[in-house]
Amino acid sequence: MSARWWGWGPEGSATAELPEAAHGLLRKRLGVGPRHTPPVALEEVKLPEIALGDNPLVRLREIVGEEHVRDDRLARVSHAVGKSYPDLVRIRSGDGSGAPDAVVYPEDRAQVAALLELCSSEGIAVVPFGGGTSVVGGVEALRGGLGSAITLDLSRMDALVDTDRTSLMATFQPGVTGPRAETRLASRGLTLGHFPQSFEFATIGGYVATRSAGQASTGYGRIDELVLGLRCATPAGELEVKPFPASAAGPSLRELVVGSEGVLGVITEATLAVRPLPRARRYEGWSFRSFGEGCEAFRAMEQEGASPDVARLSDESETALSMTLASSGSAAERAGKAYLRLRGHEQGCIAIVGFEGEEDAIERRRSQTRGVLRNAGGLALGERPGRSWLRNRYGGPYLRDALLDYGVMAETLETATSWTNLANLYSAVGGALRDSLSERGTPPLVMCHVSHLYPSGASLYYTFIAAQQEGAEIDQWRAAKTAATDAIVANGGTITHHHAVGHDHARWMRAEVGELGVELLRAAKERLDPRGIMNPGKLLPDPGLRS
Amino acid sequence: MSARWWGWGPEGSATAELPEAAHGLLRKRLGVGPRHTPPVALEEVKLPEIALGDNPLVRLREIVGEEHVRDDRLARVSHAVGKSYPDLVRIRSGDGSGAPDAVVYPEDRAQVAALLELCSSEGIAVVPFGGGTSVVGGVEALRGGLGSAITLDLSRMDALVDTDRTSLMATFQPGVTGPRAETRLASRGLTLGHFPQSFEFATIGGYVATRSAGQASTGYGRIDELVLGLRCATPAGELEVKPFPASAAGPSLRELVVGSEGVLGVITEATLAVRPLPRARRYEGWSFRSFGEGCEAFRAMEQEGASPDVARLSDESETALSMTLASSGSAAERAGKAYLRLRGHEQGCIAIVGFEGEEDAIERRRSQTRGVLRNAGGLALGERPGRSWLRNRYGGPYLRDALLDYGVMAETLETATSWTNLANLYSAVGGALRDSLSERGTPPLVMCHVSHLYPSGASLYYTFIAAQQEGAEIDQWRAAKTAATDAIVANGGTITHHHAVGHDHARWMRAEVGELGVELLRAAKERLDPRGIMNPGKLLPDPGLRS
Repeated sequence: MSARWWGWGPEGSATAELPEAAHGLLRKRLGVGPRHTPPVALEEVKLPEIALGDNPLVRLREIVGEEHVRDDRLARVSHAVGKSYPDLVRIRSGDGSGAPDAVVYPEDRAQVAALLELCSSEGIAVVPFGGGTSVVGGVEALRGGLGSAITLDLSRMDALVDTDRTSLMATFQPGVTGPRAETRLASRGLTLGHFPQSFEFATIGGYVATRSAGQASTGYGRIDELVLGLRCATPAGELEVKPFPASAAGPSLRELVVGSEGVLGVITEATLAVRPLPRARRYEGWSFRSFGEGCEAFRAMEQEGASPDVARLSDESETALSMTLASSGSAAERAGKAYLRLRGHEQGCIAIVGFEGEEDAIERRRSQTRGVLRNAGGLALGERPGRSWLRNRYGGPYLRDALLDYGVMAETLETATSWTNLANLYSAVGGALRDSLSERGTPPLVMCHVSHLYPSGASLYYTFIAAQQEGAEIDQWRAAKTAATDAIVANGGTITHHHAVGHDHARWMRAEVGELGVELLRAAKERLDPRGIMNPGKLLPDPGLRS
Repeated sequence: MSARWWGWGPEGSATAELPEAAHGLLRKRLGVGPRHTPPVALEEVKLPEIALGDNPLVRLREIVGEEHVRDDRLARVSHAVGKSYPDLVRIRSGDGSGAPDAVVYPEDRAQVAALLELCSSEGIAVVPFGGGTSVVGGVEALRGGLGSAITLDLSRMDALVDTDRTSLMATFQPGVTGPRAETRLASRGLTLGHFPQSFEFATIGGYVATRSAGQASTGYGRIDELVLGLRCATPAGELEVKPFPASAAGPSLRELVVGSEGVLGVITEATLAVRPLPRARRYEGWSFRSFGEGCEAFRAMEQEGASPDVARLSDESETALSMTLASSGSAAERAGKAYLRLRGHEQGCIAIVGFEGEEDAIERRRSQTRGVLRNAGGLALGERPGRSWLRNRYGGPYLRDALLDYGVMAETLETATSWTNLANLYSAVGGALRDSLSERGTPPLVMCHVSHLYPSGASLYYTFIAAQQEGAEIDQWRAAKTAATDAIVANGGTITHHHAVGHDHARWMRAEVGELGVELLRAAKERLDPRGIMNPGKLLPDPGLRS
């Protein structure tokens, strides 16, 4: 299943509706009235001329079979962009300039190797494509100075190759989507436990190539912690990393492929750590008087080894918005609010705390967690908020389509830093977003949550919405993005905790890893991809650009 | 404190004595009678002519100061080898061919950078040296085709630079030894929790450069899991990895420096995750009817999240040997043996299970662990075996010196694999050691333990002793080492779980990471160290050698 070309959700499904309460909120907070700004029709999307000669096309078809090379309009448009806000703004307006010349669907490792060999000798750019859910410009078919580009859509390579129940490992082809991985594993009593917001469409290969972190990564671990072994097809041959539980045999080449975003090669197989399928789940809500109090509680919980599998704390602004949107005005709701007021939590922050596993293990862990959170000022709100969060966990991108229809910018970005620096970074990035958008006359609503905990620090995830600047949507976005990322770099955050680099973050890579770090990555690329065909324009900054 | 030039233990201290029971055992099992084979005197060690010209010597002295460049006999001999069995055989016999031309002691990052610049322009090989405890030929001053070599002894760079109690991080200079790190941290209520057998002499920089795993790594994590940030001085400049808790900004350069064994540069600073100093410790013994039963118990414990901080299971052979050596013939001992016999454990395996932390947390964890181990057939033996293990945890290398004096070969090697493959690898490597040494007329005693647990697998650590083949000690060792490592490679193990690659394992690197993997490491090296001055002959296989 792939997402529709102009937004989220399966092709042909109905678009999400904004909740009733949203209309008033948008008007009141952003000054936005009902506007209807739908995407153009597929036929109106402007596509570049196909620049692949007949000879390469014939040879591509020889490798994968006639029907697995597509250059029709829908295929090209569907692979022209990922799912970032600027991607959707552009494609909805009919800008298909990021489309590849053709989309090629290999079936196995041998076909991928043959395709890379052909493209290397012909100088054709190759863009690996899993679920196409990149929000950082990771799948646009940039040419990087080459004459043509193909997208390698890995959706046919969707097998669960092997499972080892004894060692809790599973080997996947790269095109397996989140739901397919979980369904196939569940039939063997296993789970990967990786649930990014893009879960419905994203793939195993994409997870690994972008260092993805799922919503339950506090418990199950980030994807980089789950990868044991992998195979990566490169123009210089196959790189194989064996799935040892640990090794001291030199630098970790696994960690060089994980996060390589298609610029070194195509991940064709990944062996991941899996877990027994949880028999029970318990998700519950907590309230804290302030974001600062909640952060301290989460720090104590994490550092005492008392963290749940999902731990998520919304700041005051995100809490207020979600309460407004979920408001039904019922008597129960009024009673709940009165209770919070009574306890001094009426301007507070909601946290979600979720456990998965065996009943008794959950109870044992939960009792420890509750002790820490109570000591830190938390107020237990029961399972209702937890269930509600679970129900809506993949809902954000659907709502974004509805907001775009309405003329509203809706974007997210994220970072991570030490606990010591968390409050500083939190206010610096929020301030940068508010200032940069207010300066353009579109003051935003900025919300934030903490959702991934480590003993040394945590992530910060921002959502911001503002009235779109008609005719200058991309400039408006770039101003906010630049201000936020500059603030991240200046205030000790990583430029990305789990969205990856893609094209959008590449200009900050020098700030992140230094000039020599960039050169080191370039040296690896030159060895594996001497012609520079692999996903040009992503991850590595333009050699001419100084950030 | 550095170890004596010909063995383990502080310079000037008395050599360990073999336990009384060892004499009979060596005679009975290895056919070895008392022999006295002491090291030659320091004056008899043959050293290569100093090949550093006057001009470079003058410039080295300008950088670090007159008294911090040493080319006297003791300094050169003490830096000629590490502490592997073949290292000690060679140095004890007077072979000082691995000595550097001079030993240089920099004080800070600026001096290291200046030294690398000088050596790069003059074509002088540079060997970084922490505690000198390498057991894989990691610190020998090979020239790699260059005319001369200096050893960079980092013992003056021994500061705890900074601690962050809130984020549980500490930043060290590379020359801080294990005891110094723990003492300095303890005064701030913290611990690193990293206790390799080389703890007394090994350094933070060495831990990081070799992907070390301490005895408590099941609980505290391997060093590669503890490194957050670092600085590495290379001939091409400084590489800095910022200590973010997690990041998705491309491949992990941190993981390229961790385990780089000095061939890319010198680690000049490392920021590591630390923990609150444990207030309590509880170490206890368990018995299993067989190694197989114990392995299954450990697997269940690890996969249920019930592992202690130290988990160590000896096979039948190691158990029998340690019981013989510890035997006092007391009534209590006889009663203990009778109890084991009664429960069917008389040929069993001993495990050590250790917990550290707050009293209540230990009790909570311990109760879960005990449940799992009992269900899996384990028999609790109380705290006595645990205390005894703790007392002797750093004792192995001292005993080796006594065995060398006695004409006995004593060597260790290690690997790791999946739980599924553990029994297969265990017998393959043991068989290779027995066969290769028996063929030479010196049948060995081979012992093994599991000491690092992961959800997907575990490590295997072998100790073997045999009568030395007089006059062919190195050939004998090489035969055993080659047979064992070939068996590891053929049977799905990593060539090293925590001893690193050095010179001794380099020829198996192609088997470990593939030809393309080696080329990728070489590309990184060429970019950072274009003249090839950094620790030549280590980690990377000789380009001409196919394994």
